[in-house]
Amino acid sequence: MTVHFSSRVDISAPNPIAAAEAQARADGITLGKLNDSNPTRHGLAPAQVPSVYTADPRGPRAAREALAAFLATDGEPAVDPDRLYLLSSTSEAYSWLIKLLCDAGDAVLAPKPGYPLIESIARLECVQTVEYQLRFDGSWYIDVSELRELLDGPDGGRIRALVLINPNNPTGSYVKPEEREAIIGLCRERGVAIIADEVFYDYALEPFDGNARLAGESGALVFALDGFSKMLAAPHAKVGWIRVSGPDEDVAEAQRRLDVIADDYLPMSDIIATRIPDLLAAAPDQTAHVQQRVRGNLAALHAMLEDDRLGVVSVLRAEGGWNVLLRVPGVIDENELVLRMIEDHHVTGQPGYFFDMTANGYLAISLLPEPDEFARNVRTVLDTVAELL
Amino acid sequence: MTVHFSSRVDISAPNPIAAAEAQARADGITLGKLNDSNPTRHGLAPAQVPSVYTADPRGPRAAREALAAFLATDGEPAVDPDRLYLLSSTSEAYSWLIKLLCDAGDAVLAPKPGYPLIESIARLECVQTVEYQLRFDGSWYIDVSELRELLDGPDGGRIRALVLINPNNPTGSYVKPEEREAIIGLCRERGVAIIADEVFYDYALEPFDGNARLAGESGALVFALDGFSKMLAAPHAKVGWIRVSGPDEDVAEAQRRLDVIADDYLPMSDIIATRIPDLLAAAPDQTAHVQQRVRGNLAALHAMLEDDRLGVVSVLRAEGGWNVLLRVPGVIDENELVLRMIEDHHVTGQPGYFFDMTANGYLAISLLPEPDEFARNVRTVLDTVAELL
Repeated sequence: MTVHFSSRVDISAPNPIAAAEAQARADGITLGKLNDSNPTRHGLAPAQVPSVYTADPRGPRAAREALAAFLATDGEPAVDPDRLYLLSSTSEAYSWLIKLLCDAGDAVLAPKPGYPLIESIARLECVQTVEYQLRFDGSWYIDVSELRELLDGPDGGRIRALVLINPNNPTGSYVKPEEREAIIGLCRERGVAIIADEVFYDYALEPFDGNARLAGESGALVFALDGFSKMLAAPHAKVGWIRVSGPDEDVAEAQRRLDVIADDYLPMSDIIATRIPDLLAAAPDQTAHVQQRVRGNLAALHAMLEDDRLGVVSVLRAEGGWNVLLRVPGVIDENELVLRMIEDHHVTGQPGYFFDMTANGYLAISLLPEPDEFARNVRTVLDTVAELL
Repeated sequence: MTVHFSSRVDISAPNPIAAAEAQARADGITLGKLNDSNPTRHGLAPAQVPSVYTADPRGPRAAREALAAFLATDGEPAVDPDRLYLLSSTSEAYSWLIKLLCDAGDAVLAPKPGYPLIESIARLECVQTVEYQLRFDGSWYIDVSELRELLDGPDGGRIRALVLINPNNPTGSYVKPEEREAIIGLCRERGVAIIADEVFYDYALEPFDGNARLAGESGALVFALDGFSKMLAAPHAKVGWIRVSGPDEDVAEAQRRLDVIADDYLPMSDIIATRIPDLLAAAPDQTAHVQQRVRGNLAALHAMLEDDRLGVVSVLRAEGGWNVLLRVPGVIDENELVLRMIEDHHVTGQPGYFFDMTANGYLAISLLPEPDEFARNVRTVLDTVAELL
């Protein structure tokens, strides 16, 4: 089934002038523009940003080519720079894709436990979030049969997209090969697009055979998101991208419409785009550096929990990402735990209910801090739990 | 009447943890964060962007302070950096403000003739555009009585914002003092916010006494937009801003909600923000340079039209901006005119119907090109008109 797109994007037939302009382009004729309001084409750009601005809605071509080369994987087909969209963040990507796919009152499926950001962004677009469950039985898995029920249930007809976070946050769980196959099938059959957020993909915490990025998947329409925020540990660089893949017909229609959205917001700043090749060159070392930090802290966490006198705090198995979930005794109320940490230790935290965990007794902890600070954070949790028991 | 805000923004009461965090801040206590996922606070930022990222939704403080100092006008109260929001473009500003003010199915008032971008952006937000008329009687004016009828008409209750473009594009007309006073009153009484797009403000084409920016207006809730795209002739720098002003209660409520929206999309890139002081320093010379170009071309245009043998093309009086409207004989169909220019001269253009002019016979022309190219463009129009008569 082909994918459903929203009515937000105006794709009405071009007027005779736009049609003649398109024909001229096809004939290799460059037209002058009587109404050209791009000052950089008339020698008026400031010396500080001397480039000539070309309004390519997908982002400056050179930057997309550098990114495509960076994303290429040995043995896989080359990444097509024309299927990449550069933008300022994955938040912006969510916003554009929800506009592309959903009318007001439509819905997107999003994982639970998960971060509340997706729900907040969807709400800003007048779109509902329907949660599907990740379940834990020693490791996390997606409840695919429940997903199918949601898609085929009474409100399933308004579901336009499924958000997959690979690995998910804060559960740290990757999409497994058999889950992936089932979900691709479900979405393709129902014309539902997949938004695959893979910003934490490269931060595996333990080896897990058979994991793969959704980016480049051809079995269903997939918009894969990634960016410098996690890859380069540079949230303040504000570089994100969308990679579009899937059945050719769906991809073509999606890009025709996504180009309109991107064009309304204009392409990424040249000030940033010109930095992209340089920043990409730093990515492997940066990823490795952060990788080492989070893996080191996870090992230290395991050791501290093992040595703990009470032995009532454990860590849920996490496969990837920067955060893990601590399991604390369920008799302690999560709010009471964090409020006590704030009062006694001047440290705050996010308990399980922030992420819609279905039971009390969880606390997220970041693996990013320097080892000393990380150990103090763990100590704070252990001490506060001991006080409250 | 206080302003109506949309239900898109979640401003539900904070949970006990958020409340305790706010209390700690108020008490001057800095809390550690167990779940801090900002790598730049843990010595992990890349050397290429070495700053420590602080997620200030309004944009980096230093950049806002530099902008506030730049915007200060002699004899006026200082500009408060806390009432400024930095973002990537005025398109993004429109998008955020429509989200802030309008639920799906609500409407914004936008000027006609005008550029179709506002309608397109509103549609992406599931919001209608209701057009109000600018009329021409030798110079352009706003039909304020029609505005009142629209606001008080059957669909007036869904109008949440009025877009004022000062000066408007492509008419080049400023909002006159008496229009401004009437419109401020209409909006204040009905709880309608004003979005004042002032990107062309500094490009006056002739002296016009009594014009003033809407930015800083206190009589109604005003979101004034500006940015580097026009001020610095740098669309590729992608720096825009919103300045909020109006009755204190409306401003406070607007900012409480706008902060949530801004926070979802994260603040402006540090790569750009650190360049802002330097770019602002270049602004006066850049504005003057572009000013000189557009005024020079306008004078040349008048001379060419006066010298023209047929004398059937005129220019509508424009007060400001980078574009003017040419009046061509109404017996020539606008599409035919532009199609002929494309075919015979390889030059395209935007006729009046692109901007919803109410009659046939107009063509927009940019004043930006280098004088030689500009003269050729004018010549093309005159020659094509002569051929078609």
